[in-house]
Amino acid sequence: MTYELYYWPSIPGRGEFIRLALEDVQARYEDVARSGPAGAGPARIMRLLNGGGITRPPFAPPLLKAGRQLISQTANILLFLGERHGLAPRDAAGRLWINGLQLTVADFVAEIHDTHHPIASGLYYQDQRREARRNAGEFLKERLPKFLGYFETVLARSPRGPYLLGTRASYVDLSLFQVIAGLQYAFPRAMARAARRHRRLLALHARVRERPHLAAYLASPRRLAFNEQGIFRHYEELDLG
Amino acid sequence: MTYELYYWPSIPGRGEFIRLALEDVQARYEDVARSGPAGAGPARIMRLLNGGGITRPPFAPPLLKAGRQLISQTANILLFLGERHGLAPRDAAGRLWINGLQLTVADFVAEIHDTHHPIASGLYYQDQRREARRNAGEFLKERLPKFLGYFETVLARSPRGPYLLGTRASYVDLSLFQVIAGLQYAFPRAMARAARRHRRLLALHARVRERPHLAAYLASPRRLAFNEQGIFRHYEELDLG
Repeated sequence: MTYELYYWPSIPGRGEFIRLALEDVQARYEDVARSGPAGAGPARIMRLLNGGGITRPPFAPPLLKAGRQLISQTANILLFLGERHGLAPRDAAGRLWINGLQLTVADFVAEIHDTHHPIASGLYYQDQRREARRNAGEFLKERLPKFLGYFETVLARSPRGPYLLGTRASYVDLSLFQVIAGLQYAFPRAMARAARRHRRLLALHARVRERPHLAAYLASPRRLAFNEQGIFRHYEELDLG
Repeated sequence: MTYELYYWPSIPGRGEFIRLALEDVQARYEDVARSGPAGAGPARIMRLLNGGGITRPPFAPPLLKAGRQLISQTANILLFLGERHGLAPRDAAGRLWINGLQLTVADFVAEIHDTHHPIASGLYYQDQRREARRNAGEFLKERLPKFLGYFETVLARSPRGPYLLGTRASYVDLSLFQVIAGLQYAFPRAMARAARRHRRLLALHARVRERPHLAAYLASPRRLAFNEQGIFRHYEELDLG
């Protein structure tokens, strides 16, 4: 079976957390909105979102089609893929533990997005610049250290490392790699300063990047670059000293 | 076994989504921060959050202790309770469907919270009033109709009703009850206007409220009133016509 991933074609966004898992386990998948004729991607997604015939309609991408099943929400898709492809613990307690971690990653990602869109996701950045500056300032001062410190603590208490669960990677490790990469793109100054206090997290980032299937993926054109339409955006004025 | 729920003692907040599930299935639980001496609640939570000896440390409440297992994140706790106590479908596909719905409820709740705290959750409302007015305006215009419309559509496509899955309630129905109740408290004018277009959702709210165990709970002192420290706050100036 070939999975179908539905996500906006021009940003890594939340779709990237799914791609990293699919690529790491070498699952067959079609990146639907990027595989048709140029420009047709968003229309294919909208057709699925507006499809009147679906008994269990989705709210928003990313969406994963697995046979007849359509799965919504990043953490939920990873819960499904992790169990199927060995990126999650075999025991139920372990799966709940990493699902909780992934939901904390999701909260972190939402707050990162809000640094540039604190008023409304439907408005342009230019229309909420002043508010973004305030939000980003508070984020870098209070929330960034809190989230990074939390995951650093989890790694410090992990029995062997280098991954969250020890020697075997889970989908949360792949997601944390993406968050660190995105933060380094968006806030290079703040992240350079944070590096010293989060060595385990940065080592995790380096380790994930070198996993053979991911290294090949990251060097391929399938990997989308960070840009100023996505979650992790670089605006010089928000990367406050 | 008696569950232990760890959540701030003076607000319904995210803890209430867990309480509704526990009460509906008549599970035995201790509401830890509300059952000790007055004023001791937050300290009991902080001890758990800062407990250096925990191999799998939690990030934030609500937390559920089930025997030796400590479960984090609202949707994750509900995933666990739902399967154990018959508030979730028996098939894996059905459980993923409602987990996706619950995560969409979580996104909705986060956006509702941001209407009064768009700059930082650590600052007072008074310090972000102007930004809150802008955020709430956009929320009521764009996001409230989008989320309510989505859940109304899900109900319209549900085979029999009145619940999301048909004749049997799931934990998502209980959470939607809480969201509707909270929105009616926070935005009475906007919700009165929205009522006409979301009849199924309001019927679901009424139906959940009348479930015998929940009706008894809602009339008891265990049910905390909405107030201006929580997620759903009523500020006249944000309930824009």
